[in-house]
Amino acid sequence: MKTVACLGGGVIGAGWVARLLENGIDVQLYDPAGNAKTSVQAVLDNAEHAYAKLTMAQRPVKGTLRWCEQIQEAVSGADLIIESVPERLEVKQAVYAEAERYAAVDAIFASSTSGIMPSDLQAQMKHPERLIVAHPFNPVYLLPVVEVVGGKGTVPATIEKAQAFYRDMGMKPVHVRKEIEAFVADRLLEAIWRESLWLIKDGITTTEELDDIVRYGFGLRYAQMGVFETYRIAGGEAGMRHFLAQFGPCLTWPWTKLMDVPEYNDELVDLIAGQSDAQSGHYSIRELERIRDDNLVAIQQALKANEWGAGLVLADYEKKLFDKGASQDSTQATNDTSQPIQTSRRRIPPDWTDYNNHMNEARYLQCFGDATDSFMRMIGCNAAYIDKGKSFFTVETHIRHLDEVRVNETIYTTTQVLKGEGKKMHLFHHLYHDDGRLLATGEHMLLHVSLETRSACLPEAEVAAALADIARQHKELSLPEGAGRSVGQTL
Amino acid sequence: MKTVACLGGGVIGAGWVARLLENGIDVQLYDPAGNAKTSVQAVLDNAEHAYAKLTMAQRPVKGTLRWCEQIQEAVSGADLIIESVPERLEVKQAVYAEAERYAAVDAIFASSTSGIMPSDLQAQMKHPERLIVAHPFNPVYLLPVVEVVGGKGTVPATIEKAQAFYRDMGMKPVHVRKEIEAFVADRLLEAIWRESLWLIKDGITTTEELDDIVRYGFGLRYAQMGVFETYRIAGGEAGMRHFLAQFGPCLTWPWTKLMDVPEYNDELVDLIAGQSDAQSGHYSIRELERIRDDNLVAIQQALKANEWGAGLVLADYEKKLFDKGASQDSTQATNDTSQPIQTSRRRIPPDWTDYNNHMNEARYLQCFGDATDSFMRMIGCNAAYIDKGKSFFTVETHIRHLDEVRVNETIYTTTQVLKGEGKKMHLFHHLYHDDGRLLATGEHMLLHVSLETRSACLPEAEVAAALADIARQHKELSLPEGAGRSVGQTL
Repeated sequence: MKTVACLGGGVIGAGWVARLLENGIDVQLYDPAGNAKTSVQAVLDNAEHAYAKLTMAQRPVKGTLRWCEQIQEAVSGADLIIESVPERLEVKQAVYAEAERYAAVDAIFASSTSGIMPSDLQAQMKHPERLIVAHPFNPVYLLPVVEVVGGKGTVPATIEKAQAFYRDMGMKPVHVRKEIEAFVADRLLEAIWRESLWLIKDGITTTEELDDIVRYGFGLRYAQMGVFETYRIAGGEAGMRHFLAQFGPCLTWPWTKLMDVPEYNDELVDLIAGQSDAQSGHYSIRELERIRDDNLVAIQQALKANEWGAGLVLADYEKKLFDKGASQDSTQATNDTSQPIQTSRRRIPPDWTDYNNHMNEARYLQCFGDATDSFMRMIGCNAAYIDKGKSFFTVETHIRHLDEVRVNETIYTTTQVLKGEGKKMHLFHHLYHDDGRLLATGEHMLLHVSLETRSACLPEAEVAAALADIARQHKELSLPEGAGRSVGQTL
Repeated sequence: MKTVACLGGGVIGAGWVARLLENGIDVQLYDPAGNAKTSVQAVLDNAEHAYAKLTMAQRPVKGTLRWCEQIQEAVSGADLIIESVPERLEVKQAVYAEAERYAAVDAIFASSTSGIMPSDLQAQMKHPERLIVAHPFNPVYLLPVVEVVGGKGTVPATIEKAQAFYRDMGMKPVHVRKEIEAFVADRLLEAIWRESLWLIKDGITTTEELDDIVRYGFGLRYAQMGVFETYRIAGGEAGMRHFLAQFGPCLTWPWTKLMDVPEYNDELVDLIAGQSDAQSGHYSIRELERIRDDNLVAIQQALKANEWGAGLVLADYEKKLFDKGASQDSTQATNDTSQPIQTSRRRIPPDWTDYNNHMNEARYLQCFGDATDSFMRMIGCNAAYIDKGKSFFTVETHIRHLDEVRVNETIYTTTQVLKGEGKKMHLFHHLYHDDGRLLATGEHMLLHVSLETRSACLPEAEVAAALADIARQHKELSLPEGAGRSVGQTL
């Protein structure tokens, strides 16, 4: 999909706009509210801030946002129409009627409703087969899940096409099998919400204490396993059946007040709003949003390192982005090995900088190590080769730290082979800023080793030949400035 | 507290034992179950695995575990008695009666019950003032929260003393204001659980899909903000009051089935256990535990980097550990500056190793960078000095990688000043394994700089003097082997 129409630019609608733009999709937005431009821009700013940290992969050029005065203008030429207008059936139906007059006949309609059943939404549509509910969660540009729900009139092809699109956007679509009001997540959230209101109203705890009990406790579990997998563990090797036998009987205990609903009145509002002010009132909402976003980014990155849950979605998303980048890189790299070879390229992530507000010195060596790895793969010393028990180890390093580089700036390395014969590989890397500044040089002696004996040995013939071929070409190059130097020699 | 009695070594009891031992507390454990030793050991193994990754701070020497045949033996000499026996009031009361006969009169009794009210637990005690409920969450050694609940007979001093102890253990105690059955967290969990059972039973979703909706969605929110702070954001700048006005009316909608309870029968058990097997049956419980623990560690570390929530608890815990370590280090370090100075010491965390199964080359420079930082602090170039706008930047590095080191092994650095005058500081570090092997040498040229102009300038007088003093002493030392060398010079 190239162009998406967004009808409604509230918190959820603007969240969709942000995710789409950050993924290179053009958006045509219709929102007649007077303050829409300001509030949408705030969400876009948040998203830009978050995506700068979310992935080091190169993302596509941002999509363009076009503000539309009419629904007609917004939906024309759009492959997907995302409706995020107020939660009233008659409002939504009126929007669909207007949109269907101008939309392409195969454009998908996706409602962001958090509660209304798709069969009701599509009841008056000319082409109901193309409507789904696609219910996302705030912040839409960062939380992966989207509940996809079809109505009686929806055809399976619509659901499949929509799910594929959400996956491309770095999301995790979950198809809800039967439509019910509020679907799945909001059922669970409503249950927690009602019980929470009782606990505050009865003075058992405060909003802050309740939040602490969640975020220092089961919230950490829910960020990576859900309700059932967590309890499966609690059941031990006997599994879920054992857990159910243990805790099933609790169902008849009075361990919830949810047989009843707390009365919604001013007293309850005052109590909860007052406690919430005491808890979080020292932050603006904007500050809380940034804190939340930074945390969501960090948690998803942490889970990515563990190859689990939301981290897998992020990893898959990055892989797609890297693949696009890598196909470019490898073209660059293999075309010409007679010059120093571009061996890595990256944007500086926030945790690479230190108290001096620039890239930490150790990360210079990490860049050179990555460049060495990249060069090793190029000559066939790749994961498969290492699995067979051989590798290169760095035995000596000389770095000249020539210039500073800061967070979010882009850097790349080039690699020149000074020597590559026998067990030895002598490399010289240049680390450049994208603006052309030379940031550092790295000179490295590596020895080819057996991972079994941990001692030096000759490389396999193919690796030796590939290395020798590049070494032969690089012999024609002049010795780089700074090679062969010791610390302090020129200072 | 030096010695803690643990009565009951099930999943929760063993989790307490693990947290205590990892924090240097001796434990006297009573559990008459035949398989207790095996199952407790499995939890201790998990905890050891997790703590190796949780923090790089030096932890105290592990406590010792003594298995006791009798309650009498377990409670004698204990400052705290943690009861985690089966959830039956009469069983717990019998255990207290026996324990009170032998326990010190000021020993605190803390029940791990997840549901029974402390007033009931303490009803028959001779000294009810010392009983609390301290309800932790699985895995106890990793989840910070503990609900602390007093009964009618509990005195405030007991609650305060217990909370201070839990904080020292790296936990987040939350005092529940009024006792109710199941307290706070399990009320919320029971509400989610009941609603979840309905959603599965009615065929709306499967256990796996429900878990995905949680862990790719609101679970990520709950790991860092709770129920109310999350919704406060949803309310926008108008805050909680606006959110309540928007969603309060939902309370009367049929958005939950919790006015009713699903019948617990074989059909329900088969449905859920079958779906859970399909979802997670390809992992053993042990594998799931390790995955969960690794994720909990990673999430808490991610939040630590963001200075938020559970990450703050971890940071505070580490600070206490570092302070203990730092006070030792500085004693060592400042006693004798006539020899190379020990500047850092650490255990290799798992993420420092690479595909060659040893510490990655870049981490060698990180060790040397840390040693440089430590030395800088020693001569007064500390955080306060840097805040005032001056620092040292490394401009050149030479490393000889001489030997390998693997995960969980301990290493340390020593630092020798080769030159320290004017704007220049020339350092030579040795990196040693704890077993005495020399792993690497690092030679570094640093320049003193103004952080404003980013160019070289003279250090402040005190820093210059402190550096000159050590440089003068180190002039007496012989030039270390490897100093002044260029890459490949001796290969």
